[in-house]
Amino acid sequence: MAQDNKKQVEQITDMDVDFTQWYTDVCKKAELIDYSSIKGMFIYRPYGYAIWENIQRILDDEFKKTGHENVYLPMLIPESLLQKEKDHVEGFAPECAWVTMGGMDKLEERYCIRPTSETLFCEHYANIIHSHRDLPKLYNQWTSVLRWEKTSRPFLRHREFLWQEGHTMHATAEEAIAETEQMFNIYADFYKDVLAIPVVKGRKTDKEKFSGAEATYTVECMMHDRKALQGGTSHYFGDGFAKAFNITFTGKDNQLHNPYQTSWGVSTRMIAGIIMVHGDNNGLVLPPRVAPTQVIVIPVAQHKEGVIEANTAVMERLKAAGLRVKMDDSDQSPGWKFAEYEMKGVPIRLELGPKDMEKNQCVLVRRDTGEKIFASLDGIEDTVKKLLDDIHDGLYAKALKNLEENTYPCASLEEVKEKMQARGGFAKTMWCGELACELRMKEEAGVSSRCIPLEQEHLSDTCAICGKPAKHMVYWGVAY
Amino acid sequence: MAQDNKKQVEQITDMDVDFTQWYTDVCKKAELIDYSSIKGMFIYRPYGYAIWENIQRILDDEFKKTGHENVYLPMLIPESLLQKEKDHVEGFAPECAWVTMGGMDKLEERYCIRPTSETLFCEHYANIIHSHRDLPKLYNQWTSVLRWEKTSRPFLRHREFLWQEGHTMHATAEEAIAETEQMFNIYADFYKDVLAIPVVKGRKTDKEKFSGAEATYTVECMMHDRKALQGGTSHYFGDGFAKAFNITFTGKDNQLHNPYQTSWGVSTRMIAGIIMVHGDNNGLVLPPRVAPTQVIVIPVAQHKEGVIEANTAVMERLKAAGLRVKMDDSDQSPGWKFAEYEMKGVPIRLELGPKDMEKNQCVLVRRDTGEKIFASLDGIEDTVKKLLDDIHDGLYAKALKNLEENTYPCASLEEVKEKMQARGGFAKTMWCGELACELRMKEEAGVSSRCIPLEQEHLSDTCAICGKPAKHMVYWGVAY
Repeated sequence: MAQDNKKQVEQITDMDVDFTQWYTDVCKKAELIDYSSIKGMFIYRPYGYAIWENIQRILDDEFKKTGHENVYLPMLIPESLLQKEKDHVEGFAPECAWVTMGGMDKLEERYCIRPTSETLFCEHYANIIHSHRDLPKLYNQWTSVLRWEKTSRPFLRHREFLWQEGHTMHATAEEAIAETEQMFNIYADFYKDVLAIPVVKGRKTDKEKFSGAEATYTVECMMHDRKALQGGTSHYFGDGFAKAFNITFTGKDNQLHNPYQTSWGVSTRMIAGIIMVHGDNNGLVLPPRVAPTQVIVIPVAQHKEGVIEANTAVMERLKAAGLRVKMDDSDQSPGWKFAEYEMKGVPIRLELGPKDMEKNQCVLVRRDTGEKIFASLDGIEDTVKKLLDDIHDGLYAKALKNLEENTYPCASLEEVKEKMQARGGFAKTMWCGELACELRMKEEAGVSSRCIPLEQEHLSDTCAICGKPAKHMVYWGVAY
Repeated sequence: MAQDNKKQVEQITDMDVDFTQWYTDVCKKAELIDYSSIKGMFIYRPYGYAIWENIQRILDDEFKKTGHENVYLPMLIPESLLQKEKDHVEGFAPECAWVTMGGMDKLEERYCIRPTSETLFCEHYANIIHSHRDLPKLYNQWTSVLRWEKTSRPFLRHREFLWQEGHTMHATAEEAIAETEQMFNIYADFYKDVLAIPVVKGRKTDKEKFSGAEATYTVECMMHDRKALQGGTSHYFGDGFAKAFNITFTGKDNQLHNPYQTSWGVSTRMIAGIIMVHGDNNGLVLPPRVAPTQVIVIPVAQHKEGVIEANTAVMERLKAAGLRVKMDDSDQSPGWKFAEYEMKGVPIRLELGPKDMEKNQCVLVRRDTGEKIFASLDGIEDTVKKLLDDIHDGLYAKALKNLEENTYPCASLEEVKEKMQARGGFAKTMWCGELACELRMKEEAGVSSRCIPLEQEHLSDTCAICGKPAKHMVYWGVAY
């Protein structure tokens, strides 16, 4: 075995000692990502990108089932176009990258690389929407966007990151609000059913909502270190952009109207969530439904007669059953292989050696619990599928426990501050709805409002910050 | 029927009167593409993008079957990185768009938006290739690139266009050359088997090859107007970039070596090829294997009892058989619907009315020939699949006839000039291999060398331009 090719588990930082360093170690050592020579611009390596491809395939199917179509719009936005909606430009202009030269020529107007594409979609919609028959328009695009951030971390904060952005136009506010909620629910279900991550569903406060939106819905996740990650957002715009961009249609009443708009997106931050919710001190732990490899087959005593053939046969059977399976029959040691695929978070390790062959069985080892299971080769396809579902359920239950155990009511700002310092998590309090109280909470307790949960609880009659009558219950936390 | 929603076939220009205008009309009226406010930056509309998605899915499967992995690298290249390989920077720097501002700050070094990503892949490969065990690296990415062109046309020449770019590294020159040829053959087969477009396979002359490559292989297609379209290229780089970027690996001999490199790509120009090879005066004619809708079901006398139900049933049967099928039961007139789906190039129109129901049949109309076929509903799935294959074969045969009938040998520059003016197409001549003759052909006959075909013919002993001993037979033509 070549020394340069050896990986050692002990090289990962202990997650309870330094969670930040543990996270970076996993991103690098599981070969998910690499740095480029531009600060904050990352390389999505094959293993990281394959997770994204699985996410894309499943979400894209959901989008298409609900009537959405994919498009691709230009990556550059003229400055004058970005400026058409006042709140929007204020939110994004400070973090745009600007193209000022095309070929050898200085451009007459500078163009920004899209930080998000509302303005581009509006310009296009103004050209193609004329009649109520043209509505709704349900477009989505898979692409990258660029935001010139000062600080960066793999998957969490990139200057350029991959995402999808849906942009839709509707004849009525009711329809647009229903769309906003539908997509938000698709995200929430995807987190639960595919990524095995529980979410808190809610609305953002005015302070935290998207630049130019009337309402922003969010799914909020809790990481292993009890910090929050905003998992995806769905925005309702009313007809504000439509008015700014002069998008009109002739209604059934033969009058001109402005359509109502939504946008919604999730990004490769999802991968940060996967790592930080499920990972452990041996590395990545991947939820089975997006794992690039669901089962790694490792032949035991592979130089003995018939072992490779028996392992190949079981691999082919599992592949034929629609599973993503690989075999490692390299000359690396078993110990190396075990550590390697644990680091990469492969949900199931399947070991098969001469003794197993005699007994018509194999050994299945769960990545999440380490449990070893002796399984008959008869019906191994169903056994493995069932086990993958069990792993999914186990991961979800564990993450839900973390979320529930670390979400707690607080009666005062002081209590939020104390408990947040002691244990992190989500503090829930009543809130009067005033920005001043939200800012005070940020300044004194160091937390931001995560959301106004859809499922409201009545904790008390008064705002935990100012004591005035409360309007909502809010979740607070420290966010990535 | 609303007037604003009506489409009329007579709005398309006759292709034999003005092929350029016909092409633009089809792109717009089949709703493939739209213009944005930046010159040369286009919007891929749902129908155009859906063709690209089908192309992607099929090619991506081929890439993965041959061991390639997808990655995503940043869209920006620091100027100093682009300059590391001399020929490459000379080829691309004049058409780069440059980012000079990030947020509110002027950048210390300007970055170009990738016109192609060789330099980025080389930088990454230098970081991750150390041992012969790390080779080969077989990476691909699906993305857009940007080239600041002066002129533009839909699908043919965009400032930003969608493509895939494969970038691979190998331990030996032989392996890299085999990879270059393998990918070139995958492209050629894809054109034939999926797009129903025949190609000429060959090598580019030194003048026409990719900036920095040792050899460029190309597939050249002939459009309906007998002009040439370069369909895709596969490049062999030797170890030139590896040396420039200091990429080394320790071989089995324990010595340091430079790896050998390839890159290969196809783009949304393929869609231009589809339009210009197969289209006719009624609009688009899509090859069935990439058509977003393969069968459009049109109920006849749809308000009569049971008609919609019968049409829905046949649609569902075809869908269940894996076909892409839609039904149009809108209240548009039959004439409108026929023209609409002809314009959009849907390969088969399926009509089913009360009389057909009595006879347990439907009517199938071929888009390519207009032929009407009465088909029993028993086994309709197989009938339609067979017909789609027949349409594919028919389109291919027709395109091959155009290619063969318009490819002809010429003995002199003068003959090339005359025949090219009279009929276009591909002129084939012998060539000495000198740049001077190639330039003279360009200047005097207005044609560029398309390729040195792999299948060489011996037309004579001497160069058709200078009369000196000939080295190769070359195809010449006027290219898009």
